[in-house]
Amino acid sequence: MRVTFLGTGAAGGVPLYGCNCKACARAARDPRHARLPCSALVESADTRVLLDAGLMDLHERFPPGFLSAIVLTHYHPDHVQGLFHLRWGKGEPLPVYGPPDSEGCADLFKHPGLLAFRQARKFEVFEVGALRLTPLPLVHSKPTLGYAIEGPRGQRFAYLTDTLGLPPKSAAFLRGWGAFDMAIDCSYPPQPAPRNHNDWLAAHQCVAATGARSAWFTHLSHAVDAWLLEERPSPAANVRLASDGTRIDIPDAGS
Amino acid sequence: MRVTFLGTGAAGGVPLYGCNCKACARAARDPRHARLPCSALVESADTRVLLDAGLMDLHERFPPGFLSAIVLTHYHPDHVQGLFHLRWGKGEPLPVYGPPDSEGCADLFKHPGLLAFRQARKFEVFEVGALRLTPLPLVHSKPTLGYAIEGPRGQRFAYLTDTLGLPPKSAAFLRGWGAFDMAIDCSYPPQPAPRNHNDWLAAHQCVAATGARSAWFTHLSHAVDAWLLEERPSPAANVRLASDGTRIDIPDAGS
Repeated sequence: MRVTFLGTGAAGGVPLYGCNCKACARAARDPRHARLPCSALVESADTRVLLDAGLMDLHERFPPGFLSAIVLTHYHPDHVQGLFHLRWGKGEPLPVYGPPDSEGCADLFKHPGLLAFRQARKFEVFEVGALRLTPLPLVHSKPTLGYAIEGPRGQRFAYLTDTLGLPPKSAAFLRGWGAFDMAIDCSYPPQPAPRNHNDWLAAHQCVAATGARSAWFTHLSHAVDAWLLEERPSPAANVRLASDGTRIDIPDAGS
Repeated sequence: MRVTFLGTGAAGGVPLYGCNCKACARAARDPRHARLPCSALVESADTRVLLDAGLMDLHERFPPGFLSAIVLTHYHPDHVQGLFHLRWGKGEPLPVYGPPDSEGCADLFKHPGLLAFRQARKFEVFEVGALRLTPLPLVHSKPTLGYAIEGPRGQRFAYLTDTLGLPPKSAAFLRGWGAFDMAIDCSYPPQPAPRNHNDWLAAHQCVAATGARSAWFTHLSHAVDAWLLEERPSPAANVRLASDGTRIDIPDAGS
């Protein structure tokens, strides 16, 4: 099972429009440091699942039939804005799983076009091709689910964004899940009272609370990048920072 | 006063995702036939107004400070989706005029970021730099305004989309406005009962009802393009079809 981070940015991305901080200036000079809207592609055999749909060129990246499904963490625009255009296309219905949310985003539910919206419910396993997904409640300003994703040979990867901390039941599920890797929201540098998203410390606490084998920080803002450039802190030994394009192979269970 | 059509497509654009019709196949082969979300740039001296904000790369096209204002016809996603990303940027507030609409689109009003939303009211003139704009009610499925735009030397251009026909008062305003050019919604090929948008016939009727000197059809769907390829109809003598990138210079009054 392979995971590719397609975007690792917080809302606004890096470089942030109009910003001249060190991190934004670096990303403007060198696109390897740019961060698009937070999203990832999970692939296993013929199954391809897109986690979140904030990339604005989805219709150009993925030809019809390429994706098995889109799975949404929540309906904030930076996680769904690529659907506004894609939906008007032609072809087979494309399943889009997301948390129960009466509003959704704008008129997506009223005019779904080729998108077949389906509700994911906390702790109720659903399957997309070769993958088994368990929705895990997160803590955010809109109904939000993370996903514990299991491949056909027991590969395990948890995608946990957007969130500030983890509900006890979600953390407990992950502690009992066996060896797994994870992606976790780290939107802010350390701060007194983070809101709706983890800061550096809270992201580390999430990793520790779940016992993950390794964790990739994602949903990183320009402020995190500027702080990293300035302070050069060391993350925990099992933590790395994801970049756009980072590709990780999740090992088989027991390997 | 110069008008540049940045996008001339209906929702979904041309080529439409997953469509293999003659028009979409042609646009996929030759980008000169592609149609992005309907929008235009109006320039006069140092004033630059973006009409509608559906292009998804606004943050890359327009550096901070370039636009004097954004003027919205309405809050459907294909006319505002470029704002979701742009708003999180830094810099001076960017005025965004649009019709009164309690919903707006998604959370744009709740989290405007650097966008300074202002209500345009029917027939109440407002100024942006060198331009005077008169909002004109249109007929659509959401509160929608067209704009009669006058430059400093009496240049006159009306931007009228999205609409099916014109309310009598809007047509009467334009009939009494003097010589002007216009852009008008032509989303469909001829059909028995067009909804929310003009078909070929209704667009011609709008031109005739206003007495415009010349008209550019815009908001064109792949279905219009396919029909044009097939039938090769002749538009009225004062009508042309806009393409993405079409640039027109609006003459001074009396010239």
